[in-house]
Amino acid sequence: MPDRNSGSAIDAAGAGLLLTGIERLLGDGGLLTDPGLLDRYSRDWTGKSACRPVAVARPRSTAEVAAVLAHCHAEHWPVVIQGGLTGLVGGSTPHPGELALSLERLSGVEELDVSSGHMIVRAGTTLAVVQDAALGQGMSFALDLPARGTCTIGGNVATNAGGNRVIRYGMTRSLVLGLEAVLADGTVLTSLGTVMKDNAGYDLKQLFIGTEGTLGVVTRAALRLHPEPPERLTALVALASFGDLVALLATLRRILGPTLCAFEAMWDSYFECVLVTNQLARPFSARHAFYALIEVELLDPAHERDRVENVLFQVLERGWARDAIIAASLEESARLWQIRESAGEMLGKLAPTVAHDISMPLDRMESFVEELRVRCDSLLAGRPFCAFGHLGDGNLHLFTALRSPDDAEAMDALVYGALAGFGSVSAEHGVGMSKKKWLGVTRTAAEIAVMRSMKQHLDPRGILNPGRVI
Amino acid sequence: MPDRNSGSAIDAAGAGLLLTGIERLLGDGGLLTDPGLLDRYSRDWTGKSACRPVAVARPRSTAEVAAVLAHCHAEHWPVVIQGGLTGLVGGSTPHPGELALSLERLSGVEELDVSSGHMIVRAGTTLAVVQDAALGQGMSFALDLPARGTCTIGGNVATNAGGNRVIRYGMTRSLVLGLEAVLADGTVLTSLGTVMKDNAGYDLKQLFIGTEGTLGVVTRAALRLHPEPPERLTALVALASFGDLVALLATLRRILGPTLCAFEAMWDSYFECVLVTNQLARPFSARHAFYALIEVELLDPAHERDRVENVLFQVLERGWARDAIIAASLEESARLWQIRESAGEMLGKLAPTVAHDISMPLDRMESFVEELRVRCDSLLAGRPFCAFGHLGDGNLHLFTALRSPDDAEAMDALVYGALAGFGSVSAEHGVGMSKKKWLGVTRTAAEIAVMRSMKQHLDPRGILNPGRVI
Repeated sequence: MPDRNSGSAIDAAGAGLLLTGIERLLGDGGLLTDPGLLDRYSRDWTGKSACRPVAVARPRSTAEVAAVLAHCHAEHWPVVIQGGLTGLVGGSTPHPGELALSLERLSGVEELDVSSGHMIVRAGTTLAVVQDAALGQGMSFALDLPARGTCTIGGNVATNAGGNRVIRYGMTRSLVLGLEAVLADGTVLTSLGTVMKDNAGYDLKQLFIGTEGTLGVVTRAALRLHPEPPERLTALVALASFGDLVALLATLRRILGPTLCAFEAMWDSYFECVLVTNQLARPFSARHAFYALIEVELLDPAHERDRVENVLFQVLERGWARDAIIAASLEESARLWQIRESAGEMLGKLAPTVAHDISMPLDRMESFVEELRVRCDSLLAGRPFCAFGHLGDGNLHLFTALRSPDDAEAMDALVYGALAGFGSVSAEHGVGMSKKKWLGVTRTAAEIAVMRSMKQHLDPRGILNPGRVI
Repeated sequence: MPDRNSGSAIDAAGAGLLLTGIERLLGDGGLLTDPGLLDRYSRDWTGKSACRPVAVARPRSTAEVAAVLAHCHAEHWPVVIQGGLTGLVGGSTPHPGELALSLERLSGVEELDVSSGHMIVRAGTTLAVVQDAALGQGMSFALDLPARGTCTIGGNVATNAGGNRVIRYGMTRSLVLGLEAVLADGTVLTSLGTVMKDNAGYDLKQLFIGTEGTLGVVTRAALRLHPEPPERLTALVALASFGDLVALLATLRRILGPTLCAFEAMWDSYFECVLVTNQLARPFSARHAFYALIEVELLDPAHERDRVENVLFQVLERGWARDAIIAASLEESARLWQIRESAGEMLGKLAPTVAHDISMPLDRMESFVEELRVRCDSLLAGRPFCAFGHLGDGNLHLFTALRSPDDAEAMDALVYGALAGFGSVSAEHGVGMSKKKWLGVTRTAAEIAVMRSMKQHLDPRGILNPGRVI
């Protein structure tokens, strides 16, 4: 067993032997040990540098994943599982002494069936590749998030990714029809059924969706597809109050039903900061308190475009909204979406920063943001405090610019501490390392005990993403 | 510990003492022991008589459920959990020596919030009560199935019930926001969050959805509501071939998108049998090979009713369908639905019968039914063999009239045996006792081993619905 605290250097002869064993399993290019190559596997999208992994195993098949895990299980060797490394909670960056298991070579679309509406893809396939493959056949894989070009389906499943269209399509969980995963000891569980209805025994795939690689490694997924609508309408609405924002959401939900597929809220604090920081064109001449970015799927575009315009016109006429833009082209739609989607770019430019991803009932959200803003006033000393989120899901994002990275913990305490009793410390980003100590705000002691006992039961040697989540 | 093979008679002094303990926990009316009262708890909707339970515990609160289970756990006493007893797989009928735990007194709606779109209900509440409470506020709880007046939310969750609107809203799993459940040892897990996005740690509610009461007892659920559409359109379409049926589904999905909320297929074998057996009015003068019962949610009724009519008109004109009726009133809609929903009534009248609920990819379904019909020919000797189902989900129901109940096993072998490699032995009814021996057709040995190990881990004394599912 290698020394788990040895950092990136392979100093023990035993460790060398273990790596030789894995190299033999994976063949040429299957195991990376060159320190220069390992850097890429040492950090995620938070940019925080963790240590290098001992080595990176890059299996090309489920059987190779199983062989690597069986090997590590036998040797009690801890493994960190890596997809696209776009996480924001430190769940996939190595701890000292860990072997990285990257799914990057286990990629590709295996099957796409338009008539039944499913595809089967390997875990290391990026979300964008999956989306494009579906679109190429007139279908849509409905999961969508800014990291689409880099994040992988395996990571999306392991973290139960959310994104922009949850109010219409749900989280990743609701888009997974079947799954193949490998347990810590190398046991392969293949359940790649493609029908929507299958109640034959426990639905084991749920064990691997949203458990962040702590109970098994996702290797393939059967995904649910929907017909791509003939057209999408994007609109940006400016509003005077949070109440108006909530009322607009309720109105659109009632009138547009499931064709409303995104309702992204932005506080002025976010909107101004992203326009200035990323030098984006100002869509409205005046400033407003709130903004909603809306996407509607048009099934019958000629008629429904008029209908949405009509609704927005009435909302403006009655004073429930202050201004509105309906994108007239795909380019204009992309420009409006950029205001929302370049949040990550803004965050990078404002460093040091801290990001929070939380959820709560809608009727608590306005006062939560206002009270938090007051409470963190002295900590920020005038630096940006940006609120935005997927309003329809109760999901709030907070981006805060700090004087020093050392202030992040104090900010965490202010945000998560204020959530006790009604909110969740993670809406869609997961727990990883950075929210682990706050899990008790959202989960009861009894729940956390059951999570720990499941982990202990399914991974008794604690080799899969040890120390993460719980 | 009571003798588990003692049948319904409480013969051991020890058992008497245990019951006294439970009676003390539950108070007046909380424990039924009178043999006359126990009959009602001895059978489900299959009508097959099982033995009486030793007694029926009827807790009124989560704390009382926890106390009963802690008691039974301490005494290694097996418990069968009962909701509305509308199951069809023998999952909730007592085995000799079991205590029945009925949730019938733990009922009622605790909370209904229109703006956030959720309600919190107790497990023993019937589905109809939940639906009506939502409708009373202009909202819809989208789960819908013929047993709605009797089945309970706890049972719906425990069996991951499906029903008529799965193509639009998914199974029960996708309508559950939060859950409260009690483990075998009496530990209460309360996770009644009401937001759509919560990735803070393992989603423990998945352990209790669709596991048929073998891992815990559901006591309360936070349910997702959708706005009730202003109007629903019901249509019945007659078709000449299975290919036309599949093409119609694809066409409607593409044109109507998520507003298509039901697509129920009926083979002529079912259609004729249900009309004759239940003496229903004949909707078409001619006979056809297939029928599709369609429900569309109209968001903008004036425009969309025309649109659906137009689509059906074109389908008829091109010869893709033979005839079609659009219901002109709620009464007519109810009459059309009755053809599909009185399947259970028909089944009762044709006894002895056997019912199968399976799923498979759509492109296998036609030949599956045809080949099966040939293979069971000698077994049926001219008796009805009725095929129908929720086509959009790959869910097929088969109702077969038998010469003798003894032939059911041979029929099971024909149906389930033919599914190996591509289908599921249970689409929506669960496994219970009747499909347990066939689980291996759909699940691998590795999967079944993990299910067993989870059961052993979470219920080490095997007191919850012992012997069911796995």
